[in-house]
Amino acid sequence: MAQEIERKFLVTGEFKSQAFAQDRIIQGYICSAQGRTVRVRIRDNRGYLTIKGASNVSGTSRYEWEHELSLAEAEELMKLCEPGVIDKTRYLVRCGKHVFEVDEFYGDNDGLIVAEVELASEDETFDKPSFIAEEVTGDRRYYNSQLMKKPYKTW
Amino acid sequence: MAQEIERKFLVTGEFKSQAFAQDRIIQGYICSAQGRTVRVRIRDNRGYLTIKGASNVSGTSRYEWEHELSLAEAEELMKLCEPGVIDKTRYLVRCGKHVFEVDEFYGDNDGLIVAEVELASEDETFDKPSFIAEEVTGDRRYYNSQLMKKPYKTW
Repeated sequence: MAQEIERKFLVTGEFKSQAFAQDRIIQGYICSAQGRTVRVRIRDNRGYLTIKGASNVSGTSRYEWEHELSLAEAEELMKLCEPGVIDKTRYLVRCGKHVFEVDEFYGDNDGLIVAEVELASEDETFDKPSFIAEEVTGDRRYYNSQLMKKPYKTW
Repeated sequence: MAQEIERKFLVTGEFKSQAFAQDRIIQGYICSAQGRTVRVRIRDNRGYLTIKGASNVSGTSRYEWEHELSLAEAEELMKLCEPGVIDKTRYLVRCGKHVFEVDEFYGDNDGLIVAEVELASEDETFDKPSFIAEEVTGDRRYYNSQLMKKPYKTW
């Protein structure tokens, strides 16, 4: 169990030409309650079970516990998930000393692109890539667990 | 992920003298929704994360996935659980070819004692020990995830 410190931004500029890796991600939620989410993810034929706690006041920091699953386990656990699934491609883009994870969503969240950067501490500085725009850290509408229930296309 | 096949009975007779082992169990639920529960358990200084799916119609059979946790992980994940905790002692009692798990509850479920037997198939026969009474297999009120929300003392 570790503390996850992240900041999240909307993406408006071109980023794909700068990406050094990309993966398709499918994920569902066994639990999407506020303050405790249980996520099942399939990424590049591997499964992951991730449990996240409540955010701090700024929305920057959150407890996270993760365990790798076999693909078969992940597929079984995916069947237990709440209705709705998140389908996206994650691009990795380096900027200065940090790697930005840029998620391009499909399906009911088509049109939404967000970038996240993980930090070692809440006050760590980082270079902002040209493709990012408004910060949405802590805005629960952009949590994947919320995008599943209230997809971007319905906003 | 395996199919768990169990039958559950109320306990009215004396069983402790027949027990060959006992453990104190503390457990909470990150998710207690119908058809998908995520349980954190501490038993004998070990932690377990268990995800269960929906029961079949008879209530006998249910998908179950379990992963062992360190005590520290279990204690952290316990903090994310819904309010309320199940506190009980589990006694193991052999009867014929089977081992019955007899749970004596404390706190808000004080007075409740239930016995469960795990079967290899739904139609497997088993010897009934003298201490068991009415069968409550499939009765959701006796699910631990429900006993947390509507404890026995409030019935």
